Amino acid sequence: MKGKVIVRLKSEVSDPQGMTIQQTVSKLGFEGVRKVRAGKFFEIELDAADRATAEKTLHGLCDRILANPIIEDYTFEIE
Amino acid sequence: MKGKVIVRLKSEVSDPQGMTIQQTVSKLGFEGVRKVRAGKFFEIELDAADRATAEKTLHGLCDRILANPIIEDYTFEIE
Repeated sequence: MKGKVIVRLKSEVSDPQGMTIQQTVSKLGFEGVRKVRAGKFFEIELDAADRATAEKTLHGLCDRILANPIIEDYTFEIE
Repeated sequence: MKGKVIVRLKSEVSDPQGMTIQQTVSKLGFEGVRKVRAGKFFEIELDAADRATAEKTLHGLCDRILANPIIEDYTFEIE
């Protein structure tokens, strides 16, 4: 199975990387780019007996390794 | 409109970050994690007259700023 994980800063957390990108692209002439938020993406190949096991593993990976729960949220899909 | 962009290393490009995560999680006792690939995620708020304009802006941003076309691919969705 394959898990696709997106990790984002919580909406109330400041994102200097995203703000810098937004300012840069505006200076470069891209119009209408109001806001940019930067996050992380992970593609994870899993051997799991069933979907529930895969979900448990992905929650564990996100909670312990891939995301910082104080400042980040995560979502994932399983294919 | 909101664009959700995923930038990934091309499959033939080595991913030391992903490999390190895979090795670390195996040592921590997560079973069945065969492969991890790390990428980037961007959420972009756009003022665009229509979907075609938003797509053009997002392709421009990805081609010029968010992705390195030599080693990375990108996909996006518009909401």
